[in-house]
Amino acid sequence: MKNKPELPKATAERIPMYYRYLQILESNQVKRIKSQELSKIVQVPSATIRRDFSYFGELGRSGYGYDIYLLKETFAKVLNVKQLEQIALIGVGNLGMALIKNNFRRNPNLQITVAFEKNPELIDTIVTGVPIYDMNMLLQKIKENQITTAISTVPSAHANSVLQQLSRAGVKAVLNFAPERLDVPEGMTVRYIDLTSELQTLIYLSDYQQEAVDQI
Amino acid sequence: MKNKPELPKATAERIPMYYRYLQILESNQVKRIKSQELSKIVQVPSATIRRDFSYFGELGRSGYGYDIYLLKETFAKVLNVKQLEQIALIGVGNLGMALIKNNFRRNPNLQITVAFEKNPELIDTIVTGVPIYDMNMLLQKIKENQITTAISTVPSAHANSVLQQLSRAGVKAVLNFAPERLDVPEGMTVRYIDLTSELQTLIYLSDYQQEAVDQI
Repeated sequence: MKNKPELPKATAERIPMYYRYLQILESNQVKRIKSQELSKIVQVPSATIRRDFSYFGELGRSGYGYDIYLLKETFAKVLNVKQLEQIALIGVGNLGMALIKNNFRRNPNLQITVAFEKNPELIDTIVTGVPIYDMNMLLQKIKENQITTAISTVPSAHANSVLQQLSRAGVKAVLNFAPERLDVPEGMTVRYIDLTSELQTLIYLSDYQQEAVDQI
Repeated sequence: MKNKPELPKATAERIPMYYRYLQILESNQVKRIKSQELSKIVQVPSATIRRDFSYFGELGRSGYGYDIYLLKETFAKVLNVKQLEQIALIGVGNLGMALIKNNFRRNPNLQITVAFEKNPELIDTIVTGVPIYDMNMLLQKIKENQITTAISTVPSAHANSVLQQLSRAGVKAVLNFAPERLDVPEGMTVRYIDLTSELQTLIYLSDYQQEAVDQI
């Protein structure tokens, strides 16, 4: 998509969340919303919301609120959500299996359509409609299906090698569940999900909030 | 822990990541590191690193680098990592099962020690050392073990009710895998992990990077 506005990364990262809430509001027949009201729902300061939305031009009027349909359509275009995104899953252990079985069913435009694994018991089986192939079929199958997005749940020791293979297969975006930062090939974007860090951060922020309360 | 410095939330959220890399560096016998070098490893700008570290006082000297042992110990204290954190898991579906089987084994101080589920086939079984109880035992078992941290993988429709029960049981921190924002009880901290949004954000940022490359 061309002519996308230049967005700060923090704004870009909030767009999918805004989009999800706008869908919920629309399905509840809400037509307009003020930034202060939206702020309570999405738990982002209203000034941040107004700044985020301002990158997309005139989406509302002062004192009148934002037009929910207009916002939703704007963000849908930005997110490219109307296009089906086929996803390759690398590694079908416990987590990979959970991802296949859930398969983003809340979002019909995101779909794991092929998976790769080295466990012989899983190779050439089909789980909830998703075929699982031998790792050595990765290059062929991903190229064949012109898949450009992948999720990797392989152990850290193999993550870099998988990333290189994915790059050769034409994959541009990888969601990675191993916490170590990887050697990201040129032209590829990697996003890391590290549950241990998320949990440590949570406990730390909770202690912090607790102290703030204790000190009152 | 008292006398913790006042940290901006963004800094607080980077501490667990810094801590993990410092452990890796230390185990590789690295004694000191400059912010520019660390920046390449953790993929955070060096100016941000220096600002983050400055909240903790004198941890290094200009032109000489930071003392890795000192940094690591400082962050360990901040994160309270030497104290074992018992975690309750609510919901043992595919994702919950993956969490139990993995059980944060990279971090010996984080441990799921009890789980709750309503599927009768799982109730009163033990999976990799973790007992799974009926949901109606939640209040009793969590209080008994004085657990204050929980992970919820229950479907959105039940997430609010589970949160209320956890609050009554004394839980202060919850990592939640349902994407909807919840009615968070007073004194509780909730952190949301939403894989669909993570994936949308990834695809969006990747398209964005791709365009930037195309335009060169």
